[in-house]
Amino acid sequence: MPKISEKGKVMPASPIRKLTPYAEQAKVDGKTVYHLNIGQPDIETPELMLDAVKDIDFKVWSYTSSEGTLTYRTKLAEYYNKLDYKLGTDDIIVTAGGSEAIIFAMMSCLNPGDEVIIPEPFYANYNGFACECEVTVKPILSVIENGFALPSIAEFEKLICEKTKGIMICNPNNPTGYLYSDEEMQGLRELALKHDLYIFCDEAYREFCYDGQAFISPMQLTGLDENVIVIDTVSKRYSACGARLGCLITKNKEVIATALKFAQARLSPGMIEQIAATAAIDTPDSYFEEVNKRYTKRRNTLVEALNKMEGVFCPNPGGAFYVVASLPIDDSDKFCQWMLEKFSHNNQTVMMAPATGFYATDGAGKNQVRMAYVLNREDLKMAMLCLEEGLKAYPGRIVN
Amino acid sequence: MPKISEKGKVMPASPIRKLTPYAEQAKVDGKTVYHLNIGQPDIETPELMLDAVKDIDFKVWSYTSSEGTLTYRTKLAEYYNKLDYKLGTDDIIVTAGGSEAIIFAMMSCLNPGDEVIIPEPFYANYNGFACECEVTVKPILSVIENGFALPSIAEFEKLICEKTKGIMICNPNNPTGYLYSDEEMQGLRELALKHDLYIFCDEAYREFCYDGQAFISPMQLTGLDENVIVIDTVSKRYSACGARLGCLITKNKEVIATALKFAQARLSPGMIEQIAATAAIDTPDSYFEEVNKRYTKRRNTLVEALNKMEGVFCPNPGGAFYVVASLPIDDSDKFCQWMLEKFSHNNQTVMMAPATGFYATDGAGKNQVRMAYVLNREDLKMAMLCLEEGLKAYPGRIVN
Ligand SMILES: Cc1ncc(COP(=O)(O)O)c(C=O)c1O
Ligand SMILES: Cc1ncc(COP(=O)(O)O)c(C=O)c1O
Repeated sequence: MPKISEKGKVMPASPIRKLTPYAEQAKVDGKTVYHLNIGQPDIETPELMLDAVKDIDFKVWSYTSSEGTLTYRTKLAEYYNKLDYKLGTDDIIVTAGGSEAIIFAMMSCLNPGDEVIIPEPFYANYNGFACECEVTVKPILSVIENGFALPSIAEFEKLICEKTKGIMICNPNNPTGYLYSDEEMQGLRELALKHDLYIFCDEAYREFCYDGQAFISPMQLTGLDENVIVIDTVSKRYSACGARLGCLITKNKEVIATALKFAQARLSPGMIEQIAATAAIDTPDSYFEEVNKRYTKRRNTLVEALNKMEGVFCPNPGGAFYVVASLPIDDSDKFCQWMLEKFSHNNQTVMMAPATGFYATDGAGKNQVRMAYVLNREDLKMAMLCLEEGLKAYPGRIVN
Repeated sequence: MPKISEKGKVMPASPIRKLTPYAEQAKVDGKTVYHLNIGQPDIETPELMLDAVKDIDFKVWSYTSSEGTLTYRTKLAEYYNKLDYKLGTDDIIVTAGGSEAIIFAMMSCLNPGDEVIIPEPFYANYNGFACECEVTVKPILSVIENGFALPSIAEFEKLICEKTKGIMICNPNNPTGYLYSDEEMQGLRELALKHDLYIFCDEAYREFCYDGQAFISPMQLTGLDENVIVIDTVSKRYSACGARLGCLITKNKEVIATALKFAQARLSPGMIEQIAATAAIDTPDSYFEEVNKRYTKRRNTLVEALNKMEGVFCPNPGGAFYVVASLPIDDSDKFCQWMLEKFSHNNQTVMMAPATGFYATDGAGKNQVRMAYVLNREDLKMAMLCLEEGLKAYPGRIVN
C-alpha cells in the first residue's frame, strides 16, 4: 500500500470541526444545540446578489480569465478606492475565497522554513495553509486582559530574525473581534519598513466595525506599496460564504505576477459568483448599517451576559462577530465536549469553539472559548442561560 | 522590497496563455481569429443544470461541509456506480474543479522530491501543480506515429526508482485525445501493484469516447483500491468549466482522511455549484449522445482536413476533444505566433497551442500543435483553410 505524504501526516485537522460528532450525538439525543462554534452568519445574503444568480442568461457556463473578469475587478477597484486603497484592476486577483488568496500569498512570498509572525489567538486555518507551504508560524501572544490588543512593537522585534519574512494580521480579528487602532497599524508599518517585511492583512471582516470606530487598512498607509498584501472575501461581507469568492490585492507588481501564475494553473475562479459579486458591490449602505446594528446588539447581549457570570471575563470587541471569553474551567476542550455530551438545560445546550485551537502555543487559551454571535438575540440569551448553568454544573469548574 | 518566493520564481507560466497578447493584437487589426487553442467547449450547458441555478430558493448562501454535501456525493456515487466504480459517499471529496483535486491528490500522497511518471505530451498544468508540491515529473515519451499510445511497460520500468511514487495519466488524454485500451490499463495495474505505486487518473474527458470504443477506468480494475486516485470535474462533462466543481475519488481511506484535512482548511466547495451539479447528474443520455455525435463529426472534419495537407500528420484519436498534429515547420511556438501576428487569409487566422508546452522534455513537440475542436464544423473548415494557407506562406516551413 503506497504511503501518504509527510505533509499529509502533519497537516492539522480543523480544530473547529473536532466537536462535530458530539453535536450530532446531541441531535440524536433530541437536544437543541445553539451553534456558536462557527462563523457561518445567519444574516440574509443581499437580495440583489441572489437575484443576479437567478437572472443568469448565458448558455455556456465557461471559464473566466484566471485573474477574474475585468468587469468584476473594475467594480472591486471602485469599491476599494472608496476606501482610499488607490488601486487598479491589475492589482487584484480574484480567488476561490479568502482561503485561496491566503495560499497564493504564502506561496508567492514565502519559502519553506520562512517565518511569519502572527498575533495569537489567530484564525486556526492559517496553521493549515502554513503547513501546506511549509512556512513556520511564530505566534506572538495577545492577551485577554487588554482585549487582545496588538502586542507591543518591541515584542515583535524580539521575534524577528533572519528567517522572518512577514507579519500576518486579521483586522478586525477572528477569533477575538479586536479592531486594530491607527496607532497599532502605524507601528506595524514602521516595523515592516524597518525590517523589509510583508504585511499580510486578512480583511474578511472589514465591513463589521462597531461603535463608530474607524477601520484602518495597511493599504491606506503610505510607503507600503511593496509590502502589503490584503486578503479579502465576499463570505462575510455579503453573508455569501458558499460563493467561495475572494481576492488577493497588492500593489507589489512582482507578487501579482507571481500569484497570477498560481492562478493560471487552476484556470479560473467561479463565473456565476463573479456575476453575483459584481452585483453585490451595489449593495446599499443601508444593508450594512442594518446588519451592523444587529451585530452590535448581539455583541452587547453576549458580552453583558458573559460578564455577569461568576468567574467569566469577556472583552467588548470592536469588530467582526466573535468574542473570546475566559471561563472558570480547567480545560476548554473538555468543557465544550462536556456541554454537548453530558449537559443540558431545558433540553438545550450550546456549542462553542475551544480557544486552544486558535493558539499555536501549547497550553495557551485553555480556559478560553470563542463564540460567534451568528444567532438572533433570543437564541443568544437562551444559549447564555445554558452556559451559565453549564458552568455551575461542570465538574472541572475552577473556583478562585 | 521583500523578495518573492523561490517557488514563485520557478513556477511555470501557463504555456496556453502565452499567445494571448498576439490574439488580442489580431482583434485590434480586425482579423477573425479561430480559437482552437483552449479547451473551452462551445457546447451548451445542460438546461436542467442552469435551471437549478436559476431556481435557487435559499436566503443565506452558506458554506457546505468541506467534503461536499451529502446530497451531491450521494448522487455522484450513483453516477460512478453505474460505471461500476463500486464506491460510497465517503470515498468522494468535492473540490474546486479537477484542478484542486489534483493539488489535494499530490499534497496528500507525495513528498517534495518524489517522482511521478507521466506520459508526455501531458496537460501542461500538471507541471504547475507539481511545482507547487515540489514533486518531480518524470516524462515518458508517447509518440505521434502510433497515435500517442501508452509507452510499453518496459519503458516505464526503466524510469522507476526509489523516488517513484506514482503514475499519472489522463484518459481520454489531453492533449492527444488518445483513449487508453483495456490492455494498456491492465499493464498499468500490474506495474502499480508490482512497485506499490499510486495511479492518478484524470478522467476529465470520460464522457467523450468515440467510435463505440470502451472507456476503462482503473477504478474498475481489481486489487487497486489502495492505489487508485481518480480526478474528476464537471467542467467538460456538462460544459460547465466556470462552475469550478470537481472531485477526488479513492477507496484508499488514509488518502481520503488526509485529503479531507486539506479540504477543511479551505472550508467548502461552492454551494450553488453543488446544487447545479446534483441536478446535472440526471442529464439524459440523449444529451451526451448528441454531443458525442457532434464531436465525432468535428474530429473527422479536422483530422481529414489535416491529413490532406502536405507534410501534415494527425492521428485519429478515440476521445476528448483535442488532436495533436505534426506540421512541416521549424518551431511551433514561432509558427503559432506568426499565424497570429503576421498571417491572415481572407482576413482570418487561427490560434493553436504549440505542443511544446505539453512536453517536459526540452525540444520535444517542436513541430507539433494541439487543436481543440470546440468550434462548429463550418468554422473548423475555415480554420483549416487558414492553416493550409498559413503553412504554405510560413517562412520557417520545412520541406522534406
Ligand atoms: C479570518 C478569516 N480569514 C479567512 C477566512 C476564509 O474565508 P473564505 O475562504 O470563506 O473567504 C475566514 C473564514 O472564516 C476567516 O475567518
Ligand atoms: C486533463 C485536464 N485535467 C484537469 C483540468 C482542470 O479542469 P477543471 O479545474 O476546470 O476541472 C483540465 C482542464 O482543461 C484538463 O484538461
